[in-house]
Amino acid sequence: MTIPGGDTLTVKTLKTVEDLTTRLLEIQRINSAAALLSWDQETYMPTGGGEARAEQISTLQGIAHQKLVSPDIERLLAAWIDSETGEMRDSPGDAWDEPSRSLLREVWRDYSRAKKLPSDFVVTLSRECSLAQQVWAEAKKASNFAMFLPNLRTILSLKRQEAQYLGYKDSPYDALLDVYEPGSTIAALRPLFAQVKARLVPLLQKIQNSSVQIDDAALFRSFDVTRQMEFGRLVLMAMGYDFERGRLDLSAHPFTTSFHPTDVRVTTRVFEHDLQSCLFSCIHEGGHGLYDQGLDTRYYGTPLGDSVSLGIHESQSRMWENCVGRSRSFWRFFYPLLQQTFPQQLGALDGEQFYAAINRVKPSMIRVEADELTYNLHIMLRFEIEQDLIEGRTNPEDLPGIWNRKMEEYLGIVPANDAEGVLQDVHWSFGAFGYFPTYTLGNLYSVQFYEQAQREIPRLEEKITAGQLMELRRWLEQKIHRWGRMFTPDHLAQRVTGKSLDPEPFLSYVEKKYGEIYRLTGS
Amino acid sequence: MTIPGGDTLTVKTLKTVEDLTTRLLEIQRINSAAALLSWDQETYMPTGGGEARAEQISTLQGIAHQKLVSPDIERLLAAWIDSETGEMRDSPGDAWDEPSRSLLREVWRDYSRAKKLPSDFVVTLSRECSLAQQVWAEAKKASNFAMFLPNLRTILSLKRQEAQYLGYKDSPYDALLDVYEPGSTIAALRPLFAQVKARLVPLLQKIQNSSVQIDDAALFRSFDVTRQMEFGRLVLMAMGYDFERGRLDLSAHPFTTSFHPTDVRVTTRVFEHDLQSCLFSCIHEGGHGLYDQGLDTRYYGTPLGDSVSLGIHESQSRMWENCVGRSRSFWRFFYPLLQQTFPQQLGALDGEQFYAAINRVKPSMIRVEADELTYNLHIMLRFEIEQDLIEGRTNPEDLPGIWNRKMEEYLGIVPANDAEGVLQDVHWSFGAFGYFPTYTLGNLYSVQFYEQAQREIPRLEEKITAGQLMELRRWLEQKIHRWGRMFTPDHLAQRVTGKSLDPEPFLSYVEKKYGEIYRLTGS
Repeated sequence: MTIPGGDTLTVKTLKTVEDLTTRLLEIQRINSAAALLSWDQETYMPTGGGEARAEQISTLQGIAHQKLVSPDIERLLAAWIDSETGEMRDSPGDAWDEPSRSLLREVWRDYSRAKKLPSDFVVTLSRECSLAQQVWAEAKKASNFAMFLPNLRTILSLKRQEAQYLGYKDSPYDALLDVYEPGSTIAALRPLFAQVKARLVPLLQKIQNSSVQIDDAALFRSFDVTRQMEFGRLVLMAMGYDFERGRLDLSAHPFTTSFHPTDVRVTTRVFEHDLQSCLFSCIHEGGHGLYDQGLDTRYYGTPLGDSVSLGIHESQSRMWENCVGRSRSFWRFFYPLLQQTFPQQLGALDGEQFYAAINRVKPSMIRVEADELTYNLHIMLRFEIEQDLIEGRTNPEDLPGIWNRKMEEYLGIVPANDAEGVLQDVHWSFGAFGYFPTYTLGNLYSVQFYEQAQREIPRLEEKITAGQLMELRRWLEQKIHRWGRMFTPDHLAQRVTGKSLDPEPFLSYVEKKYGEIYRLTGS
Repeated sequence: MTIPGGDTLTVKTLKTVEDLTTRLLEIQRINSAAALLSWDQETYMPTGGGEARAEQISTLQGIAHQKLVSPDIERLLAAWIDSETGEMRDSPGDAWDEPSRSLLREVWRDYSRAKKLPSDFVVTLSRECSLAQQVWAEAKKASNFAMFLPNLRTILSLKRQEAQYLGYKDSPYDALLDVYEPGSTIAALRPLFAQVKARLVPLLQKIQNSSVQIDDAALFRSFDVTRQMEFGRLVLMAMGYDFERGRLDLSAHPFTTSFHPTDVRVTTRVFEHDLQSCLFSCIHEGGHGLYDQGLDTRYYGTPLGDSVSLGIHESQSRMWENCVGRSRSFWRFFYPLLQQTFPQQLGALDGEQFYAAINRVKPSMIRVEADELTYNLHIMLRFEIEQDLIEGRTNPEDLPGIWNRKMEEYLGIVPANDAEGVLQDVHWSFGAFGYFPTYTLGNLYSVQFYEQAQREIPRLEEKITAGQLMELRRWLEQKIHRWGRMFTPDHLAQRVTGKSLDPEPFLSYVEKKYGEIYRLTGS
């Protein structure tokens, strides 16, 4: 390539950094193996196998960590990057293509973070998390927070230690947030969440004062669990989730995990007397699954083959679950099928009643079963509690009381026990502090992206009404999935929608949708 | 401890070699992870995930291999062992206790073998085997040997290479045999197998000339597959297989795998029109599973926590399957339960008829479904073919013809296609040359051990008749399972039965059992 002035410009490509990506690939394979061990722990592992499994997972994670911080990687990175600042050293007459530039930026991000954590700390944290997760499951079953408390203390002290290792400007919690959502901080999230809260709380009040009473009793009749699973599978197939490269299994908590774009697994749970649980968790996890199946296999093992952030990941699951899965268009097509599957239970419920029932707003104890509106209030209380725990303002033993008070404050209801209160979520048991806020980010991004899809895909709602979901899947793959970590979350949002994260689309969407369902008059 | 002469004798224990066992433990955890990846590949992995999985498994196996041959392990071993000869260096005034002595002997065995194989060879072999296994499955489905041939060639050339690396005296095949059955050679097996054949072939002839015609048609009626699985599970529980530390799943080929004594998994397969397949593979794999669950958890990661050889392992599965599971005593208790499970199909068949039906001798195409007698003839033809392949006397492309000719020679029948002929077994696809002979060794050991159990456990047959199988399980655990690799296979046989492997108990057992069933007159 010739540049003005007559010099020859050498373009550096992924080929240039092949020594580096080969090593990253090995590390990714170890991480994928560890991910399978975790998937198995949640799905099929016999109970007796837990302790040995914790050690196996932590051994693999320790090895992966050691390999990432090895002098080998350091040497290969140092050839192109200033190891202090992470700045690329562009030599005159040289240029990097965009994939390689992004790759080096992101590898340096991973490397420099990993480098701050001693390998034995990584092994200890992994083992303690794996064990705590099992104790949490027992404690939740027994609805006994005290059982889980010693493990929670251990995890908390390790996570505070981790924040110290990683470093931060304002709060140790920022160091943890950044792991899940690159660039996010308390300072950025607080006003954003305040803005959301300022619009959601009055909306919720109006809904609660509305004379419209939605009857969703039909959704809690008896539904054969096998048929529920079959229907979940059918919807996943319609979404374009590829069962040749995926599976649907049962687990206590629905989740998605990926070992490679050719092996991406989702789980669900199914309750005889709750039609929504299996159905919407299939759609939700399917959204996650499509993202992971849509990553570019050629980049597997590198950041370009990895999802960009949890917030963006959650935007995919929430878009499918809510913007699509709780829309009129979607159910115009799928409700007759659902009725045929459960004629006795749903025969008397017409499509409009069903649409209202699945969109009923009602403050409830369990986050994952919350409606679109109150869901974010669940997140906000966790966001506050997490900060207080990590910053040391709250004693872990006081958690159940604090939880219950905040539930009353935010949602006007009080859990009757720990299982439906502070013990309901698995996250803290595996050390995921700073994870919850990404759920609300996902909600906000989901509508911002979906409205862009509506603008760009001709007659999208018509297609959805006809059960044709593939065009949306393709759009998401082209616009978001296949890019991996090529762009930062913010850059990606700008590329796709022309602007950074903006809560307005989400807020207008819920005000319009629920205003109509609950026949609310203008403010 | 004081020894004659007044010197103080220092006894070295496992504590002395703790640095070594800590490293072994890490390696075992990696191997256990790889084993889970393989289990998943055979049970739940979506088809698209195969290529990535092959790479993940080979990455882990490569790392485990590298760690085993690391200078670290070498240094730790060299402190106690002459690295050339493997002889222990006993310093005067020192003594090792038996566990430590055995541990060092066996670690040296593993280490010195691994040391002979370059790490990149291990990775290549692992990847090629994992891929070949998937191609074999497709080829078998299509009953098309040509599809599998290229992979078989690759595997064969790698296995010959492996034999060269490992070294041998008489035949490269000996180097491969020794991996599965320490100490076994063609020279030792050939006369043993000849002796077995010399007694089995005339016995088979007499049976085929017998006027007794056994009608087993009832076993091939329609049996609900879920009920079959439930019955298999019931028998496993009665055997003492612990479902808190294990699982039963479906796979194309039944197998047992262990990630730790607290997580040992068996698989089976189930056919609607064949009652025996699921039933006896559950009992068979259950025998393997009891061995792995019976290993001492304290020794996990060291050879003392590992099974001693495939022949001994198979003795456990065959003992449960045949000595117990095809005995009158066992079915006195379990047949009424089986009849209740399938009243329509089995109502008219009395216990004695059922006993005869499950012991019907009939040359058949498929090894795993063969009766106790003809089973060993299946092994012998594989033993001969393997030698010829490894020693280069046979071209892989000629295999189907050779297979069919030998089937006719040994069993008087000829497969109609590759699927029921040369493609029936998975073993060669994952590089397991030298594995098949251990099945016959297992058959011989099983009766030798079982007759010892009958001598030592008071009223064993009575107990089995009452459905009480636990005492046998405990005896096996005490006598065999818990010792791991403390003793060599031969030493173990001598400890348990007072003598080395002896085909006589097996031969007398089948002559007596089938003589009675087929009402054969004395020779």
